[in-house]
Amino acid sequence: MKKFLNSPESLLEESLTGFAKAHADIIQLNKQPYFIQRNSPTPADKVALISGGGSGHEPLHIGFVGTGLLDAACPGQIFTSPTPDQMLAAAQAVDNGGGVLFIVKNYAGDVMSFEMAAEMLNIPTATVLVSDDIALPKTHSIGRRGVAGTLIIEKIVGAAAEQGADLSTCQALGNKVNNVTASLGVALHSCTVPALGKPTFELTDTEMEMGVGIHGERGHDTLPLTSATEIVEQIARKIDEELKPQAGQNVLLHINGLGSTPLIELYLIYDLAAQFWEKRGVNITRSLVGNYTTSLDMAGCSITLTLLDEQLTALWDAPVHTAHLRWGC
Amino acid sequence: MKKFLNSPESLLEESLTGFAKAHADIIQLNKQPYFIQRNSPTPADKVALISGGGSGHEPLHIGFVGTGLLDAACPGQIFTSPTPDQMLAAAQAVDNGGGVLFIVKNYAGDVMSFEMAAEMLNIPTATVLVSDDIALPKTHSIGRRGVAGTLIIEKIVGAAAEQGADLSTCQALGNKVNNVTASLGVALHSCTVPALGKPTFELTDTEMEMGVGIHGERGHDTLPLTSATEIVEQIARKIDEELKPQAGQNVLLHINGLGSTPLIELYLIYDLAAQFWEKRGVNITRSLVGNYTTSLDMAGCSITLTLLDEQLTALWDAPVHTAHLRWGC
Repeated sequence: MKKFLNSPESLLEESLTGFAKAHADIIQLNKQPYFIQRNSPTPADKVALISGGGSGHEPLHIGFVGTGLLDAACPGQIFTSPTPDQMLAAAQAVDNGGGVLFIVKNYAGDVMSFEMAAEMLNIPTATVLVSDDIALPKTHSIGRRGVAGTLIIEKIVGAAAEQGADLSTCQALGNKVNNVTASLGVALHSCTVPALGKPTFELTDTEMEMGVGIHGERGHDTLPLTSATEIVEQIARKIDEELKPQAGQNVLLHINGLGSTPLIELYLIYDLAAQFWEKRGVNITRSLVGNYTTSLDMAGCSITLTLLDEQLTALWDAPVHTAHLRWGC
Repeated sequence: MKKFLNSPESLLEESLTGFAKAHADIIQLNKQPYFIQRNSPTPADKVALISGGGSGHEPLHIGFVGTGLLDAACPGQIFTSPTPDQMLAAAQAVDNGGGVLFIVKNYAGDVMSFEMAAEMLNIPTATVLVSDDIALPKTHSIGRRGVAGTLIIEKIVGAAAEQGADLSTCQALGNKVNNVTASLGVALHSCTVPALGKPTFELTDTEMEMGVGIHGERGHDTLPLTSATEIVEQIARKIDEELKPQAGQNVLLHINGLGSTPLIELYLIYDLAAQFWEKRGVNITRSLVGNYTTSLDMAGCSITLTLLDEQLTALWDAPVHTAHLRWGC
């Protein structure tokens, strides 16, 4: 294992300390327990948005705390759920009278921790479960996982909360976006978790892993590595079958790097995915390309599509000021 | 070699096409010859800023074209200088009566191409040579290379140009920033150039390469891999000896990922570098952490320090609206 590291045990604390120093204008770090909260004042009765999950996916979620997005993020150890005391403390810190909306990627540990926090709180709470990963069937016993579509849900709901939408409206909006968002990922090599010291799975030089999640788990199929055009076709076809965008439909196309895939390749993927939907008459009216929901140093990418209407487009465009997503303010 | 690729020959064109589609609100692509230019109108007599160089360093330079930064960028093939016809065509397209400033990373091929373009142009031109990489001695025959400090120079000069500074003022400002900026990089493993198909150099599991550039070239020393604290000390000490910041000096600290190093490690590096200068009474008043000047999928990072005064700080803070650097507008 080759990493910049003092020890696997101290990495999260040291890294969060660096993050808080680098972005002291936007966020602050609470250390006991860990959460990152926004600095900017929140309007009275604004719904507070809190997300969180295992670390190792940066900039998700800590990089998206700030005006127009999350009020707080609770980072667990690498690929490990945060504990309920983190969400409890974060909620008490950022609640401003409007209640708290938890945005939770659908993993058993995350769901349980957020649920326990909600039960302990004397504040109105609601939860949006993110399940955009179509690698698993809709009928899977634990349900589908939350992956790169999480940011899109957080951004859109964050804008609505900033504009004064109430708790049930924010929750309904989050569910709406989750229902029109689908993602699928592919890896060329796995990631190395510092505490483990070796890749979480092995692929030969001629293999790729289709349907990977973001925790170094295997996908649903180990397939022969093929051309970028063919890989994008395989992924885009499955997303298209899921969401069935009609000709004339406006969409947001998000190409997400999983960690060590260069931007020059991500923009190639973007072009090929754009061609896929352009041929079908779908209008790609918004886009996002880069490393937003990563899996440490995994080589690979995911494609996410969200069906847009006027409301979702306007909320996507609304001002946002965080460490790693910023426009309009 | 495992990459998302149709062919090494078509990668640049396909990727630029994707980039132009994804960011059609900010930039446009000219294909014969290749350059990216900003969409937003430029004030009359504004100095036009043009940079360029080999591809494979994205988001540098194409991701930094837009309001408050570059007017155009000329991408060569991967790690290959652009040709003079690109800068010639870009200059003719974006000149707005104020002349053209070329910001050129100091590599023989880039310097020659930009010089030839300048000679062919009937427009006043000036050049800033970027040489922030202290891996080579100041007395090196070709001079020091331009690396991650390039973005800092481009951002500061871009703000001045947007505010109406004339050509000689912009050139002097660029030289001023270059003189107070120093960078040094370290790699844990090299990158794989698509046309080559294998890493450009090999390191064992216990080695690191100190003083790497951004083209997959070896550095000045192959050293034993050590703790993050010790690596940062080694780098920061050399930068400190070069720039000699005094206690009370304001600085910009930039931790740049070379491609496949996760953000969680880059923020650890940031914290350690910040501690190094904080101990010496230096004020880190601005920061930038992330993958800005990459070397394809190289694992590694560089540390860049720029000494700030009030003028440079205000220009750094000025609004910028590009694909990969955006604030204040």
